Amino acid sequence: MKKITGGVCAAQGFKANGVHCGIRKNKTKRDLALIVSDVRASAACVYTQNLVKGAPILVTKAHVADGYAQAIVCNSGNANTCNADGVEIAEGMCSLVEKHTGIPASDVVVASTGVIGQPLSLEPIAGGMGSLVKGLGENSDFAAQGIMTTDTVEKQVAYTFELGGKECRIGAIGKGVGMINPNMATMLIFVTTDAAISPEMLQKALSADVKDSFNMVSVDGDTSTNDMVCVLANGLAGNAPVESAGKDFTAFRKALSKVTTYLCRKIAKDGEGATKLLECKVTGAKSKKIARTVAKSVISSSLFKAAMFGADANWGRVLCAVGYSGADVDINKVDVSFKSKAGTIDVCRGGSGIPFSEEEAKKVLSADEIEVLIGLGDGNGRATAWGCDLTYEYVKINGDYRT
Amino acid sequence: MKKITGGVCAAQGFKANGVHCGIRKNKTKRDLALIVSDVRASAACVYTQNLVKGAPILVTKAHVADGYAQAIVCNSGNANTCNADGVEIAEGMCSLVEKHTGIPASDVVVASTGVIGQPLSLEPIAGGMGSLVKGLGENSDFAAQGIMTTDTVEKQVAYTFELGGKECRIGAIGKGVGMINPNMATMLIFVTTDAAISPEMLQKALSADVKDSFNMVSVDGDTSTNDMVCVLANGLAGNAPVESAGKDFTAFRKALSKVTTYLCRKIAKDGEGATKLLECKVTGAKSKKIARTVAKSVISSSLFKAAMFGADANWGRVLCAVGYSGADVDINKVDVSFKSKAGTIDVCRGGSGIPFSEEEAKKVLSADEIEVLIGLGDGNGRATAWGCDLTYEYVKINGDYRT
Repeated sequence: MKKITGGVCAAQGFKANGVHCGIRKNKTKRDLALIVSDVRASAACVYTQNLVKGAPILVTKAHVADGYAQAIVCNSGNANTCNADGVEIAEGMCSLVEKHTGIPASDVVVASTGVIGQPLSLEPIAGGMGSLVKGLGENSDFAAQGIMTTDTVEKQVAYTFELGGKECRIGAIGKGVGMINPNMATMLIFVTTDAAISPEMLQKALSADVKDSFNMVSVDGDTSTNDMVCVLANGLAGNAPVESAGKDFTAFRKALSKVTTYLCRKIAKDGEGATKLLECKVTGAKSKKIARTVAKSVISSSLFKAAMFGADANWGRVLCAVGYSGADVDINKVDVSFKSKAGTIDVCRGGSGIPFSEEEAKKVLSADEIEVLIGLGDGNGRATAWGCDLTYEYVKINGDYRT
Repeated sequence: MKKITGGVCAAQGFKANGVHCGIRKNKTKRDLALIVSDVRASAACVYTQNLVKGAPILVTKAHVADGYAQAIVCNSGNANTCNADGVEIAEGMCSLVEKHTGIPASDVVVASTGVIGQPLSLEPIAGGMGSLVKGLGENSDFAAQGIMTTDTVEKQVAYTFELGGKECRIGAIGKGVGMINPNMATMLIFVTTDAAISPEMLQKALSADVKDSFNMVSVDGDTSTNDMVCVLANGLAGNAPVESAGKDFTAFRKALSKVTTYLCRKIAKDGEGATKLLECKVTGAKSKKIARTVAKSVISSSLFKAAMFGADANWGRVLCAVGYSGADVDINKVDVSFKSKAGTIDVCRGGSGIPFSEEEAKKVLSADEIEVLIGLGDGNGRATAWGCDLTYEYVKINGDYRT
């Protein structure tokens, strides 16, 4: 597998673009993005489990019910959620894509992200759609910018991989820095690939993948109303279509995981106000499920997150979060270490503290990427979760988000 | 019921004190507290559900197993948790009480609060016990100060009430401002009463009470390792002992609830870094359980808490937290209003936003006590949860707690 440039345009037959159409007040911010495939593609999606679902989610579900789609349209600055006319507006966005591209509205995936509960007008979208479609090309970066809200960096990635001797490509863009604690689906992630794979196997790959990728990310414990991960696979790589489990399916899953894991780290590191990426690696669990539960609990603890902001090796908070996670763990077997590019420091063995150099610990925890390693000494289950530190800036960003 | 002064010394036959013995570095901070009853008292406790349990919890459980106790000793500055010699130290604290008061160590409730995973030495406690016992008297305030960690105000309260024609008194002290998201028990709360009530009925009253009091408080979503609520009832009021359900038991529960609810509000308002008390009142739920789940979810949302800090009427975050609470709710029936001494403002009806004056909302949300009223339109279940806003100060306090 080789990392390449191009984001969602890396795979054959995909074009993208992003423009400022006027939903966001700041004219330097793009707020409308479009991704199109030259041909109809297998489509798989996972969605938020929040009972409050953005109108675009309802519309997208209907449009991909047949397993296929050809375009993705997404605006930022307004979530189109909790609005009486939400579904009508989301359908309107798809119709505008049809009008300007000829792709049937029923083959368009639609997404929105931003403030909840403020009416979204079709007017700016109608006004911007012409230039959005006209500028379609190798513009994955513009599309990545078009879906950003409080994100500080655009998030895109692409890899090549091989299926049955054919070179395939897979790429993605993503957004999300706050209201992030996915449950079965998360944030907005759009993946494109030219691999040939049936809608069923594509959905199977995606549903399995999110359990170890986006569902293991937490910025603030809030599960959004608009989370969505969507993969389009247009088959233009010419490989023998993946239609069942086997070597090719495993290779595809590996490629998908490469892309999603990259974005998980990227999203956690750009968490609202974050100064540090936190990666919690749990090993020795009785089961994979227990490992996931423990890793997620630690990465979500406000107290642990604040301690990491302060480079304070307060490992008692790690043990505390393991203890209240609800997972079946023998606390007297738990080991904890902190690791970064500055070194590794062991702080807890068998559930009790061990002496360590505070100076050394400060050095390790002052890095911008920190691993907390938790050994449960109880089996072979392992899992990784991603999060970020809790900072003044998080509070500032969210104390007055709407203005 | 009448509010009176005296805290844990309001009830007949209870004395208390608090001193600085040297566990905390700051000599102006008391760090050791003692409450004693003239006679053995019925004792009931509830404890943290965290798998990591402080050593004092294990010792207390054993000491109150017979339903009785006569003293409570508690230090701050060190949680005596995750230490290999923790149980030995906690037993040592009880023995020191026995040595200086004559009360058997097996009738002493012991508690510790502070940093997890640092060895606790008996030395300062042994040194301070003499003056602690010597100063026993109407010193509920000293005891309240002795159990504080990052608390900014001491927390105590007392009421008179009547049981079978006899005047009884009930009072309490409490501490807790961080690592607060109780589950079946919480923080440190010590309640004293001179009512006569059997250990069984006392436990029944307490276990029922915490479901609607301390279990409905959240400061930061972290469930502590040392949470404990303990009630001592010494019977000196001379009422006919409460030994079964009935009018007197109901009256006792009402008095207990008065005390615990007061402390819930006090603890939430003094939440680490908090500038505002948030009170979430849910009505119209299909069941009480659903009402509790929804109220707790909203009060725990970091995004909602940050919005309240900024006096931002971002009600979408309220709806979002209702939606991911896991409770069985019809989102299309949900009403939301904000209320404070500055007025009431309706922001959402039937799951959709309604027009409101931002200026008016800012006024309502700038008060230091804010109610968020959620109507579910689905039944008669109701519940209240207490929390606080998320501020820069919370991050500051927890970024470097140990130094």
